[in-house]
Amino acid sequence: MKTINIFGSTGSIGKNALDVIRRNKKNFEVLGLCAHSNTDTLCAQIKEFSPSYVCVVDEKSAEEVRHLTKKIKLFKGENGLRDFASVDCDTSLMAISGISALRPLMINIEHAKKIALANKESIVTAGNFVLSKAKKFKTKILPVDSEINALYQFFALKNNFSKVYLTASGGALFNYKPKDLKKVRAETVLSHPTWRMGRRITIDSATLVNKGFEVIEAHYFFNLPYENIGIVVHRESTVHAFAEFADKTLFACMYPPDMRMPISFALNYPKRIDALKASNFKGRLSLSFQPLKRGQFPLLDIILKAALRKDNSLVILNGCDEVAVEHFLSGKIKFTDIYKAMNYIFSHYKSAKLKTLDDVFYWDAYAKEKTKEYLRAL
Amino acid sequence: MKTINIFGSTGSIGKNALDVIRRNKKNFEVLGLCAHSNTDTLCAQIKEFSPSYVCVVDEKSAEEVRHLTKKIKLFKGENGLRDFASVDCDTSLMAISGISALRPLMINIEHAKKIALANKESIVTAGNFVLSKAKKFKTKILPVDSEINALYQFFALKNNFSKVYLTASGGALFNYKPKDLKKVRAETVLSHPTWRMGRRITIDSATLVNKGFEVIEAHYFFNLPYENIGIVVHRESTVHAFAEFADKTLFACMYPPDMRMPISFALNYPKRIDALKASNFKGRLSLSFQPLKRGQFPLLDIILKAALRKDNSLVILNGCDEVAVEHFLSGKIKFTDIYKAMNYIFSHYKSAKLKTLDDVFYWDAYAKEKTKEYLRAL
Repeated sequence: MKTINIFGSTGSIGKNALDVIRRNKKNFEVLGLCAHSNTDTLCAQIKEFSPSYVCVVDEKSAEEVRHLTKKIKLFKGENGLRDFASVDCDTSLMAISGISALRPLMINIEHAKKIALANKESIVTAGNFVLSKAKKFKTKILPVDSEINALYQFFALKNNFSKVYLTASGGALFNYKPKDLKKVRAETVLSHPTWRMGRRITIDSATLVNKGFEVIEAHYFFNLPYENIGIVVHRESTVHAFAEFADKTLFACMYPPDMRMPISFALNYPKRIDALKASNFKGRLSLSFQPLKRGQFPLLDIILKAALRKDNSLVILNGCDEVAVEHFLSGKIKFTDIYKAMNYIFSHYKSAKLKTLDDVFYWDAYAKEKTKEYLRAL
Repeated sequence: MKTINIFGSTGSIGKNALDVIRRNKKNFEVLGLCAHSNTDTLCAQIKEFSPSYVCVVDEKSAEEVRHLTKKIKLFKGENGLRDFASVDCDTSLMAISGISALRPLMINIEHAKKIALANKESIVTAGNFVLSKAKKFKTKILPVDSEINALYQFFALKNNFSKVYLTASGGALFNYKPKDLKKVRAETVLSHPTWRMGRRITIDSATLVNKGFEVIEAHYFFNLPYENIGIVVHRESTVHAFAEFADKTLFACMYPPDMRMPISFALNYPKRIDALKASNFKGRLSLSFQPLKRGQFPLLDIILKAALRKDNSLVILNGCDEVAVEHFLSGKIKFTDIYKAMNYIFSHYKSAKLKTLDDVFYWDAYAKEKTKEYLRAL
């Protein structure tokens, strides 16, 4: 029985994780649940899982769960989140979205033995800070992202791979012509062909910003040089990653696109629990792979260019993308304006080294402000 | 630099192996070459690789290489083969086809540090004898068969897999209707859709006898219970095997169908040598998988039934298949007569335990005789 704290329990990953736990109740004790403001879902989760700690990041919403928390310690607001992150546990799942996960993650590294990390922005913007602190505190960090999780499964074998390939579904707009992208509506981009995920990551899948972020994750988690991380288009999202040996033999990691699989792997690691999937190969299965067309996804190119600069550029681009995607989702800008904003910011940001974690937050705020200005003027 | 002896150097596997060695000359010294009777090819190989030992199993043919062997020790005939098998070396490749490989293999286990085993009949008929002798002499046996080789790659990782799947191309007659099988000619069955292999194995691929034999290999090499060895139809022969974890995640082992890949793996193990393949994912790749239809391949069913009996039945069926396939290849019987012979022999053989290696040869001779009788009377 392992104690587990869940950051972002009412989001897509959080709910999937609780379903994994529901199917393996003898293995986990839910110690703490943390949500932003979706108190309806949170109340139901509290009733079902009886945690000892609850955190509601939005202070106003916190009052809506107060009636359920007589025997429960209730944290609220940003300060509450930091206290929640200081609760000792065996395992935590960090599924808060965006760069907001970074501060609680850095605190939590001191208090969890193992962290299943579903947040990629923390690695993209502050990979060195996160992973060196985890090393110092001997906290195991397991990536939940299916592609990076698949690579973790390979690298856990302590084998010598010479290259890896991340698969990319290509997102909802893969077959769109450039001229049709202007008119595309948020609902269209949000209907991902294979994965059901949060809103920002679904938009980021269509621009392949998400794939760029995963390349950076792969770089940090497995010390892979960027030239040894390839991307291959795989519309069916059944193979999550490939590892290639020197003789060009490939290992593929496969399962149908269901986030409960990598979540279950990360929470149960090093055990594997048989709880979820039906038998393989009961029906027909077709898988296709194709190279990525150079130039089809300009934001991916920008991210990969930024990754090679050892400066603040990834923080800048992540901040810009977060703001631009929010604007697109709320109907304020066109889909192609995300491209424009990223292009503009990437050619106008001030390059600087990241010396402390505060630098990350400084440049994040800077990028968000600049992006808002740019989008207002559009 | 490792010394290597090749049994069956003029066959399909032998020639592929010499190509692997040709591309990695600094890693191997060809110590010995052994062929049955194809002296034209053997002479060319002697000139190119300058072995110290040569063996020609067909005594008459041996004279045809005599002029090249002034500085070379020449062995001939069955006795010569035994002496050749007693030559000490680092690595040997056993690529003699059929049960004829069994005696030299058993001798060679005492003289080679590592044996790349491309012969499956020796495992099908005498798996326990071969593998327990290898254990006793601490001789590593590496399967060359692509499917079993792929499993070896997985199991070398010391991971816990709960099930494996062997892929089956389905052979040349996969889409034939039963009524059309009677008329099918040897050339048709010999034109395998993906692999270029020896004649018997190509026919055995069409009946799926070959796949049944691989199931038995997987059982012996990895101590897998038969119920944990599945078969999945995969026409493209790009994925060679799957290993499945308890959580149903699959690892696939992939490369284009080229026997030099598993041969190179087996000869170089535990190293991986980059010498052969171009980069992956430069073009489009489509892979399909489908369950095997029950009843479509009656000989597979017979082999798998026989595998569960702990008697001489696999020796019997292997002997019967060898004779029946020879008869089909030389135009003496129809394709469907292979089915008839196997069915007849399987329902009329005398069950007995295999207590010694001589029992294996006894029942092999018995099955061959009975099959010839049956086919004559047809």
